[in-house]
Amino acid sequence: MQTVTVNLGERSYPIELGEGILSRVGEIMKARGINGRVGIVSNPPVAELYGDRVRESLEAAGYDTATVLIPEGEAHKNTASLGLIYDALVEHRFDRSATLIALGGGVIGDVTGFAAATFLRGIGYVQLPTTLLAQVDASVGGKTAVNHEHGKNLIGAFHQPRLVVIDLDTLRTLPRREYAAGMAEVIKYGIIEDAAFFVFLEQEMDALLRIDANAVEHAVATSCRIKARVVEQDERETDRRAILNFGHTIGHALEAFTGYERFLHGEAVAVGMIQAAALSAGQGLCSAAELRRIEALVRRADLPWRIPDDIALEDLIAGMALDKKSHAGKIKFVLCEGIGGTRFQWFSPEEIVRELASGL
Amino acid sequence: MQTVTVNLGERSYPIELGEGILSRVGEIMKARGINGRVGIVSNPPVAELYGDRVRESLEAAGYDTATVLIPEGEAHKNTASLGLIYDALVEHRFDRSATLIALGGGVIGDVTGFAAATFLRGIGYVQLPTTLLAQVDASVGGKTAVNHEHGKNLIGAFHQPRLVVIDLDTLRTLPRREYAAGMAEVIKYGIIEDAAFFVFLEQEMDALLRIDANAVEHAVATSCRIKARVVEQDERETDRRAILNFGHTIGHALEAFTGYERFLHGEAVAVGMIQAAALSAGQGLCSAAELRRIEALVRRADLPWRIPDDIALEDLIAGMALDKKSHAGKIKFVLCEGIGGTRFQWFSPEEIVRELASGL
Repeated sequence: MQTVTVNLGERSYPIELGEGILSRVGEIMKARGINGRVGIVSNPPVAELYGDRVRESLEAAGYDTATVLIPEGEAHKNTASLGLIYDALVEHRFDRSATLIALGGGVIGDVTGFAAATFLRGIGYVQLPTTLLAQVDASVGGKTAVNHEHGKNLIGAFHQPRLVVIDLDTLRTLPRREYAAGMAEVIKYGIIEDAAFFVFLEQEMDALLRIDANAVEHAVATSCRIKARVVEQDERETDRRAILNFGHTIGHALEAFTGYERFLHGEAVAVGMIQAAALSAGQGLCSAAELRRIEALVRRADLPWRIPDDIALEDLIAGMALDKKSHAGKIKFVLCEGIGGTRFQWFSPEEIVRELASGL
Repeated sequence: MQTVTVNLGERSYPIELGEGILSRVGEIMKARGINGRVGIVSNPPVAELYGDRVRESLEAAGYDTATVLIPEGEAHKNTASLGLIYDALVEHRFDRSATLIALGGGVIGDVTGFAAATFLRGIGYVQLPTTLLAQVDASVGGKTAVNHEHGKNLIGAFHQPRLVVIDLDTLRTLPRREYAAGMAEVIKYGIIEDAAFFVFLEQEMDALLRIDANAVEHAVATSCRIKARVVEQDERETDRRAILNFGHTIGHALEAFTGYERFLHGEAVAVGMIQAAALSAGQGLCSAAELRRIEALVRRADLPWRIPDDIALEDLIAGMALDKKSHAGKIKFVLCEGIGGTRFQWFSPEEIVRELASGL
């Protein structure tokens, strides 16, 4: 077991990583001074796998628990699921000393975090992320949100958890496709911040794909550390934190254009990273060799890497000015400076189409 | 025009008070460096009185505006009204640089503030409170919320405004009953924090009731200053800020017991303050003479002062253990130490009934 600390002043919190530690959640929470009642939020398939283990650990540590299940899937990352959580909290008469636990992937984490941010103007919250994506992304930084009918994550809050417990064993029950999608974000951390970590991923991708315990622990802990370093400098994304959106601009467009049905988030980000790297190469910020290494690593991780032929670049880009990161019709891109660095640059939709159509 | 500053570090903001200053909102916002698009949230009767004035001032200062009206009344302080605001923001493609303006009383302020706290994880927000209650209470402290079917303010956030502009002229169009209800909170500030201000209110209540400009400006500015001083010490109500709940425990119970239809919030607080003062007198914390002065001032302000005969004390208190300030069945009361001081004390429902039944 190892600990990564996210240093945010009075909102600092630890991420505990290890194998099999879900069955020790109760004692870990106690050791961290978390008291009061606990609401476990999950969805049916995850609760089926891990619900009993977590509840038993909590009860053994003396916690009074209640469980709320919300339906599985991104379609339920909405105000209706939020309503289910609020209703349960009211029904069980939870007060300000209560804590919500998010047991599941990104949807569970985001909805539960937003419920914790807003119930009684803010109660405590603990994350038990069970997907690679949630472990390396949502576990750091306190972004919580639900989707609006017209856009993802339009309604949300910054609310840091008090504790994150990552049980790496949960990755063994994760569908292969979801595991690979999470790997896209892991690769992203290497590209934007840490050339040595990128080399580690190049060397250990086979071990990672067979879920070798040591390789996975290093990859997850390093990812959390890199994200923590970025978030610590700019908690509310006024500036530098936006480098974490590397690959996400075109990634989001791809997800939206295909109705969030064809690509998993990480898969769309994988494609978006290669497009962003190509844009960077076009600006002379990274070499053709670096672009090839990025593309090769993404492909080795079993991730999609190009915009499918049936999607016209113009149509894809047209929706992007709607993205919440757009400003006055221009879109802010995170470009990579070689491997391990970043730079922001604004492009009009026309410029993006021109650059990418010529470059790929 | 005078300025009261609420000092909360990077979340500090000014409250500008004066007569007729609604028509200068645009220039005041510009002077404070607020840019981007502006969404004005109001309700039909307030928009009828002041909407054009505010919009014209904003447009003269170069702001691009959109207006969202939500239905009037506490019954609409809910997620449906929130949905109307989110929908309008999405429809008008508001981005993170946008600002919401709350033009109205407490309901408008609370719903608008919560929408601003949660849209795109937080955008700016300016309050133009048009009721005495909103001017002296909601304008300081950043509490925002909507009601849940089973309880008031169960869903909310702390989100400080960037600016508050109080036009005292709006009090001249306020129904007398609402004006008196706001006066209950003004009296509260004297009781909990400032004996000299309480004396001022005793001396100037007639002037205040005829809305004498100087008396009202002093009363509103002093109320904002006292609340700011308390909030600055404990922004998120972990402790000391709770003294602002003086009179609110029984006040809330009275409102809830009568289905929020019989008493305005301030009227219920007026009754609750006298009950809390009586509890304080019973504990030897304030004298009988001080209790009589509090009661006399509340009555001179045209406010109700006792629990109506048709409401049994036992029934009223029974609902209180549900209040979000309750803990393990005991209820935290703010008692007054004389006039100008406070102390917290926990009571069981049975103790409250016994104390109040004997004391009054």
